[in-house]
Amino acid sequence: MTPTTALASSRGEEAGTRAALAWSAAAVDGGVLSEVELAAWLADRRRAQPQRVERVPFAELDGWRFEQGTGDLRHASGGFFAVHGLRVRSDFGPVPAWEQPVIDQPEIGILGIAVRDFDGVPHLLMQAKSEPGNVNGMQLSPTVQATKSNYLRVHGGSAVKYLECFRRPEPGSVVADVLQSEQGSWFLGKRNRNMIVRVGPEVEADDDFAWLTLNQVNMLLRQDNVVNMDARTVLSCLPDWRAEVTGPAASLHTDTEIRSWITRRRAEHEVSVTPIGLDETKDWHRDPYTVSHVSGRHFSVVAVDVVSGRREVAAWSQPLLEPHGTGLAALFVRRLNGVPHVLLRARAEAGFLSVVELGPTVQCTAGNYADLPPDAWPPYLDEVRARREAAVYDVLLSEEGGRFLNAQSHYVIIEVDDDIPLVSDEFRWVSLRQVDELLRYSHHLNVQARTLIAGLRSL
Amino acid sequence: MTPTTALASSRGEEAGTRAALAWSAAAVDGGVLSEVELAAWLADRRRAQPQRVERVPFAELDGWRFEQGTGDLRHASGGFFAVHGLRVRSDFGPVPAWEQPVIDQPEIGILGIAVRDFDGVPHLLMQAKSEPGNVNGMQLSPTVQATKSNYLRVHGGSAVKYLECFRRPEPGSVVADVLQSEQGSWFLGKRNRNMIVRVGPEVEADDDFAWLTLNQVNMLLRQDNVVNMDARTVLSCLPDWRAEVTGPAASLHTDTEIRSWITRRRAEHEVSVTPIGLDETKDWHRDPYTVSHVSGRHFSVVAVDVVSGRREVAAWSQPLLEPHGTGLAALFVRRLNGVPHVLLRARAEAGFLSVVELGPTVQCTAGNYADLPPDAWPPYLDEVRARREAAVYDVLLSEEGGRFLNAQSHYVIIEVDDDIPLVSDEFRWVSLRQVDELLRYSHHLNVQARTLIAGLRSL
Repeated sequence: MTPTTALASSRGEEAGTRAALAWSAAAVDGGVLSEVELAAWLADRRRAQPQRVERVPFAELDGWRFEQGTGDLRHASGGFFAVHGLRVRSDFGPVPAWEQPVIDQPEIGILGIAVRDFDGVPHLLMQAKSEPGNVNGMQLSPTVQATKSNYLRVHGGSAVKYLECFRRPEPGSVVADVLQSEQGSWFLGKRNRNMIVRVGPEVEADDDFAWLTLNQVNMLLRQDNVVNMDARTVLSCLPDWRAEVTGPAASLHTDTEIRSWITRRRAEHEVSVTPIGLDETKDWHRDPYTVSHVSGRHFSVVAVDVVSGRREVAAWSQPLLEPHGTGLAALFVRRLNGVPHVLLRARAEAGFLSVVELGPTVQCTAGNYADLPPDAWPPYLDEVRARREAAVYDVLLSEEGGRFLNAQSHYVIIEVDDDIPLVSDEFRWVSLRQVDELLRYSHHLNVQARTLIAGLRSL
Repeated sequence: MTPTTALASSRGEEAGTRAALAWSAAAVDGGVLSEVELAAWLADRRRAQPQRVERVPFAELDGWRFEQGTGDLRHASGGFFAVHGLRVRSDFGPVPAWEQPVIDQPEIGILGIAVRDFDGVPHLLMQAKSEPGNVNGMQLSPTVQATKSNYLRVHGGSAVKYLECFRRPEPGSVVADVLQSEQGSWFLGKRNRNMIVRVGPEVEADDDFAWLTLNQVNMLLRQDNVVNMDARTVLSCLPDWRAEVTGPAASLHTDTEIRSWITRRRAEHEVSVTPIGLDETKDWHRDPYTVSHVSGRHFSVVAVDVVSGRREVAAWSQPLLEPHGTGLAALFVRRLNGVPHVLLRARAEAGFLSVVELGPTVQCTAGNYADLPPDAWPPYLDEVRARREAAVYDVLLSEEGGRFLNAQSHYVIIEVDDDIPLVSDEFRWVSLRQVDELLRYSHHLNVQARTLIAGLRSL
């Protein structure tokens, strides 16, 4: 290597990427599939991926068992993931201490989208993929969505297609590559590598894959339960292509102030998280089919048997986490001196590696608050309800169907133009340019906020 | 609050801060203390802080005990810190698996330097502070250096001076505020909040404190054992003020490539770290005075009795970790097309929260490699030894004296102008502008690399 030959100019390269993405977002009837062809492809793929998911008792799970002594739910191979207990003390939110089951999956997987130019317009290689937990079987997923065990083929199964585009990308081809967390209330320290990589014409769309413009992906993001969680989080890591974001306009707070706020929230919270055995997890009980909370709230751990024509393995059984009730993730957007800002909340979720990440304005499942007095309800929930009819985005979306069963949330974006008083240091108006910057570094926006950012950019 | 009234321009504000720091770095004989007065103040403070440190058997520690069952060394209050065992499996470095004692201190403390203008020149409020582990008693520390228990006065003691400057800074006064890790081989997941805050004329220097220009601090950074570790890490988080760094020049790799490299190193390493009891830590033995490795290498845990006239508490006893042998942390610096770059190594240290951080070109304690074959020695160690006479920085510095006893390392910076072949994906040339950017976000450069960056800027 002669390092001096290839000195790189980050800003120039990046401006080019943003311009190309803007072009793709504006493209109508992309070069590869017309609107009609895309709809036909989606319908066809849904038919072509028959999947049967049946609830079974834990005793019928193949290879999974409740470990002697702890009661933890583990796979005999030691792989995949485990469900154990967690003892939490936290000064975030209305409940100071509780215990709960949690999914422990320490591996870092890859979620990657390949991007290829057709007639100069970038297209994203999206995958039609069934997951057992999806309400509708097939959803649109990234080019690659694989745990490390998956892609190293620890458990057998076929090779992960397109993996090498992400494990060995061409020099200069990486658009984004960042570790991001997943649901901090359900996963312990889970994170995946979110990647976007440009590829050349040698990469072609296999069965179950299609090249879509950003315009087409954005159109699908505005529909219920089409674009899956893994695709949404990767999309949020694209550099923001919209001129109103990249222009030289001022944010309400300086970047240093926003970073300092995040640091302070992380340093000052008192959160302690101790892994415990699933059997000793207080207020949770196991019967042959479920591990559930005595109140009937929160979620259950259940077991399913799956038969699928289109996965690495054709038939298997596994545990899933089934939330009770539909979630709500709502974001207020406001222009300040013409610059779009979003109202984010610094949330301490038990499973976060970094104590605190920024979440939506409101993130909750209403049913979980039924026992608590109104003043314990999330701030701004009333305002979200009062203004919901005017929402610019209101879409029902699923969380990752490989781990969660029928886990749906309403994702809602509401434009506001009046002063919304901040109720505490947990909230800040952050400009979309600042969000774009924070998304280049790990663990700043939680997965619900990332979905809302992808949704906002789709408008 | 009316948010629209105070829209902030990050770039403008920041350029002003960098210009002011450049002014302070160029100032000769600062407005407050002349060179002669500074030397006299340091000598005077050293005399005024008598400290007696005596090794004692663990049995004589006040409040500390080896816990029944685990053998972990803990304080009766549950506070301060604990020493327990760690079982490590790691594909970084030559040893695939080992066990070791580790310091567990989950609290996030504050390390903060207050900056005040005198005649338009920023001065840093530095503290003369004795620590039991320092080879020379007193060293120069930040304005505030306090654990959370310290500053919340959980264990009694006097109030932490200047704390409110950092806990409640004036709007717009924060220059840097970021969580950074400490030694990943000795601490489990330790991190502190590194802060720099501008203050007004109402803040005056108390006994044991002095206002120094950046020029004076830099002069002291080039001397053996004057500026302590806590001060060095905070100084490294200052925005780089040197025109050669802030100018619009190109780096060898784009920022995206550097971030992608860090993400890949984090995702691909196989590191597993399991807390275990100190008693079951293989190859480590306890006698009345030490917990040591059977080989005599690495470090020992010891106990000391301290009497000091100048601390929150006048007399106490505590455990310390005593490394065996002097460490080496060396950094290669090279200009590529006129732009300074440093050769960093992506290191997986057992105690890192983020699996991998960037360390110096070479970081080791030679004695720990005595049993291993030469090809297991750190890459570039030979080159560092061969070129050391030409080092532009070669200073003996101590690690944090509140936790480590006589923990000294040679910090060495060597300018190179020939092609140094990269031996693996663990190494990259990173420009100083990119280092400056990475230091705004947590957990990118380890504490040894941060010391070397502070040293490099002092030249």
